[in-house]
Amino acid sequence: MKELILGGARSGKSRLAEQKASDTGLDVVYIATAQAFDSEMNERISRHQSDRPSHWQTVEEPVYLAQCIMDNAKDSRVILVDCLTLWLSNLLCLDNESVFEAEKQALLNVLSSVPGQLIMVSNEVGQGIVPDNRLARRFIDEAGWLHQALAEQCEQVIFVTAGIAQRLK
Amino acid sequence: MKELILGGARSGKSRLAEQKASDTGLDVVYIATAQAFDSEMNERISRHQSDRPSHWQTVEEPVYLAQCIMDNAKDSRVILVDCLTLWLSNLLCLDNESVFEAEKQALLNVLSSVPGQLIMVSNEVGQGIVPDNRLARRFIDEAGWLHQALAEQCEQVIFVTAGIAQRLK
Amino acid sequence: MKELILGGARSGKSRLAEQKASDTGLDVVYIATAQAFDSEMNERISRHQSDRPSHWQTVEEPVYLAQCIMDNAKDSRVILVDCLTLWLSNLLCLDNESVFEAEKQALLNVLSSVPGQLIMVSNEVGQGIVPDNRLARRFIDEAGWLHQALAEQCEQVIFVTAGIAQRLK
Repeated sequence: MKELILGGARSGKSRLAEQKASDTGLDVVYIATAQAFDSEMNERISRHQSDRPSHWQTVEEPVYLAQCIMDNAKDSRVILVDCLTLWLSNLLCLDNESVFEAEKQALLNVLSSVPGQLIMVSNEVGQGIVPDNRLARRFIDEAGWLHQALAEQCEQVIFVTAGIAQRLK
Repeated sequence: MKELILGGARSGKSRLAEQKASDTGLDVVYIATAQAFDSEMNERISRHQSDRPSHWQTVEEPVYLAQCIMDNAKDSRVILVDCLTLWLSNLLCLDNESVFEAEKQALLNVLSSVPGQLIMVSNEVGQGIVPDNRLARRFIDEAGWLHQALAEQCEQVIFVTAGIAQRLK
Repeated sequence: MKELILGGARSGKSRLAEQKASDTGLDVVYIATAQAFDSEMNERISRHQSDRPSHWQTVEEPVYLAQCIMDNAKDSRVILVDCLTLWLSNLLCLDNESVFEAEKQALLNVLSSVPGQLIMVSNEVGQGIVPDNRLARRFIDEAGWLHQALAEQCEQVIFVTAGIAQRLK
């Protein structure tokens, strides 16, 4: 099963995703897309780490996500990706359109053949004011398109608000 | 029937609105409120145009929306307005409070007497951080009030997330 | 009963909360957390005031919310707090971490023992782009965590969009 878990910042979406991964009873591989460039990000990453069971395998992959999913997926496993918006942001920061398009397409292509279970977490970023900054607008567009494309392929789509899950699909 | 379709940026709300307009089987008049001031906006407009059936009639009206709706509405037609937030933004940029109030009121007044069907698309912009910029705060306020006033008069209100429609009313 | 009413800016959440408070038939004490530092804020406060029944008791408390709730709560009353995000913002602006933590904890601790009814209104601020500004990011984090913690303790959680209530819990 493929599942997409959306929600705003600090909505409880990661915690829900981790609970769902635990509840499968399968081995969990956690793919972290975050990169620690500064102390604030380091702190955010540590906080997330300490929330996760220590026996989960953690793989860090900021950019080549589709390959990383295929390398780790097995029938007996659940892959938890947290989160897609950071991955998109890492991809955009490479400032290389052909890598960007290739990696985005690779993720969309890989979904139909991933064995086992896949849970993807992503931030809703498009329900505030449109920002002045062109890169931020691009990011919002790309996140929105990605969510639409993934939601179409996922069996379940959940939106989390204040720690409460609403099933959209 | 009058319908309001809300959603964040790139949530799939325009595509849903276009599908709904097509599904009526009626002639469609598409009222575009966007104005192309720069290449980015031009690109956004072209992308939307290429998504629409070529036999639809397109009318561009950035400001005088109520009049434009009345000029085009007929029992045998569906009017699709995309989108209200751009229209609001165009109105605010005129920097003329009396025109602003008159046009806003005209839209609210016209709704009860529009013949045929009316589908209005608008952006949710108020669920992020309150911006520093005073005009942006005004825009958020006006969009929120407009959505409330229109939702009250519409038979259906839909919220779109990741391409998935949730019926609010 | 404890109830949390969330929604974006100008979503109609205050109006819904006021309606709910009225509908209880109980005496209403309205706790206003807003502080008027400038003319815009003054105007926002006046607009909210004129929307409320004049026989409601209004208490202004920008910071020490838990104590204020306990001082005013009674079996025969409904306490309406509008809104938590302004209170959080006031707390953060004190720039005193120990007061911040103490007051946040005090609110969470007080909930289980509040007599009568309690309706809390708060803004959803985390569904837009992550802001550049560090304090704004902190604010978003704190608002999100607070909403999760309160939602867990509340019997009802409502999300308001365009004046329309969706029950989340």
